[in-house]
Amino acid sequence: MTVSGDEVRAAAERIAGRVRRTPVIQVAPGLTLKLELLQHTGSFKPRGAFNRLLSAKEKGELTGQGIVAASGGNAGLAAAYAARELGVPARIFVPVTTPAPKVAKLHLLDAEVIQVGNEYAEAYQVALEARDASGALLLHAYDQPEVVAGQGTLGLELLEQAGMFDTVLVAVGGGGLIAGIATALGDNAQVVGVEPELAPTLHRALAAGQPIDGPVGGIAADSLGARRLGDLAFAAAREYAVPSLLVDEDAIVAARNELWHQYHLAVEHGAAVAYAALASGVYQPAGGERVVVVVCGANTDPSTLS
Amino acid sequence: MTVSGDEVRAAAERIAGRVRRTPVIQVAPGLTLKLELLQHTGSFKPRGAFNRLLSAKEKGELTGQGIVAASGGNAGLAAAYAARELGVPARIFVPVTTPAPKVAKLHLLDAEVIQVGNEYAEAYQVALEARDASGALLLHAYDQPEVVAGQGTLGLELLEQAGMFDTVLVAVGGGGLIAGIATALGDNAQVVGVEPELAPTLHRALAAGQPIDGPVGGIAADSLGARRLGDLAFAAAREYAVPSLLVDEDAIVAARNELWHQYHLAVEHGAAVAYAALASGVYQPAGGERVVVVVCGANTDPSTLS
Ligand SMILES: Cc1ncc(COP(=O)(O)O)c(C=O)c1O
Ligand SMILES: Cc1ncc(COP(=O)(O)O)c(C=O)c1O
Repeated sequence: MTVSGDEVRAAAERIAGRVRRTPVIQVAPGLTLKLELLQHTGSFKPRGAFNRLLSAKEKGELTGQGIVAASGGNAGLAAAYAARELGVPARIFVPVTTPAPKVAKLHLLDAEVIQVGNEYAEAYQVALEARDASGALLLHAYDQPEVVAGQGTLGLELLEQAGMFDTVLVAVGGGGLIAGIATALGDNAQVVGVEPELAPTLHRALAAGQPIDGPVGGIAADSLGARRLGDLAFAAAREYAVPSLLVDEDAIVAARNELWHQYHLAVEHGAAVAYAALASGVYQPAGGERVVVVVCGANTDPSTLS
Repeated sequence: MTVSGDEVRAAAERIAGRVRRTPVIQVAPGLTLKLELLQHTGSFKPRGAFNRLLSAKEKGELTGQGIVAASGGNAGLAAAYAARELGVPARIFVPVTTPAPKVAKLHLLDAEVIQVGNEYAEAYQVALEARDASGALLLHAYDQPEVVAGQGTLGLELLEQAGMFDTVLVAVGGGGLIAGIATALGDNAQVVGVEPELAPTLHRALAAGQPIDGPVGGIAADSLGARRLGDLAFAAAREYAVPSLLVDEDAIVAARNELWHQYHLAVEHGAAVAYAALASGVYQPAGGERVVVVVCGANTDPSTLS
């Protein structure tokens, strides 16, 4: 069960005008950055959120009950943003441990925030119950076909923007982003997953032959901290032979600093992970290989950069 | 005496491959940002620096004595960067009051830094003497034809990138940037200067009928703090009927925060000035008017953003 290229192309039509077409910049011969951190709410997540909500709207499944989602991170921000833009209420379920600034950001986007449970798995369960009780639409952070197809629209933009390229480096959490991009690119380029050593969902799934739960932690866990890879992502990783590279914590920190000092991009740790593979030498392009790095999130405290 | 469109087009050929082609992003209907903060060294200044140095090289005027320049800001960084790339030494003259981090940044780019005098006018005089004594090439921060033509290459990129647009908002210091852009665009768009109330060089020159010295200060003075408009800039402002709008300190701070929170761009105060005209309502586009804002510098302490 994979998402099709047609679904990604349909998503691009559906969400046109709702998301920013984010630019690319060639920063060195053979190295292009896709500046998806400039997207609404500071990450790629609105692509999938709008596709899920607008698809449901077409089928009459988006009612006055609006949506429910479980995430205090970028997926939650995108859920709240998309719901507000489409004029439906959003209820976002987050653990009681969620820091106050994240809750405040969700409130700023007019979301109702429900703090419940000690971790995401619990908040997610309560979100499911709320969906069942209310008829609201569930927006998953990565493992829904419309979400994967929406994230894939980033890949379609790359095909138009970046000229010819061979390889795309993408950070992996639950895998919605990489699955969408791999689907969009098909045979046009090799997609390579990059993950923190301390949150290796794709790595673990490839080793086990299926997505499995595992511990997550480290400096990028707030964006790449899914417990296990999504089923859709696993199917796409198989279909498009997507490998996983691991980078350590120091490499992530160094890459984030380099993105600021060399390229003037203030990014969150999760969004430095793909670049870290290149900067640390974990990924070594062949001579003449043309690489695109997806820079996927800006939700960071900039004071940690100086 | 103005720079010609041909000089700008020649500059573009000359510096191709040395500077980044910085992207644009459409952030709202009718509003496009030119992301020049992503340029090497974090500002547009390398465009003019490379054009000045490479033009001199063609004429045999760039010798082993290298270059001299007077600026601890973005012009100094660009001078040091361009010299290093071209393999010639750079001596940068700055006042004794220049903060240590700025001196350190110049050292990182292999420049020799000479701290002399209490303000830029004095450091500049000593730079001129060093030029006369050594035969080094002087790189001015804004008032040399090759510098203006180099900055103008940003305007040529806009013509290719931004589709059709009506108006371009540009911050003004000594006026090299706006003069170059106005020359590049010619009749294709109206260029509008924006200046801090506390550093209004173009405003003052237009009122007086010629560039005149005046006090400068305020939060953007480190990048927009030229004492008077350059003669080339004044000539271009006349030729292309470039007006000057003034924004106050609060508008600059608010615009900088908005560029971070809405668009995920960490910029220095001077680079928020053009956007401030729009955000504060000092510039009110007509219905359907398509505006480009040049976001021109990233050399900021990001901890002041959070
Ligand atoms: C900035 C950023 N990058 C990457 C990811 C990973 O996306 P996915 O869960 O679709 O793999 C996330 C997820 O929240 C994110 O916020
Ligand atoms: C970020 C930034 N913006 C604008 C300017 C003004 O440029 P000009 O002096 O060419 O008017 C400068 C000059 O240093 C600058 O550094």
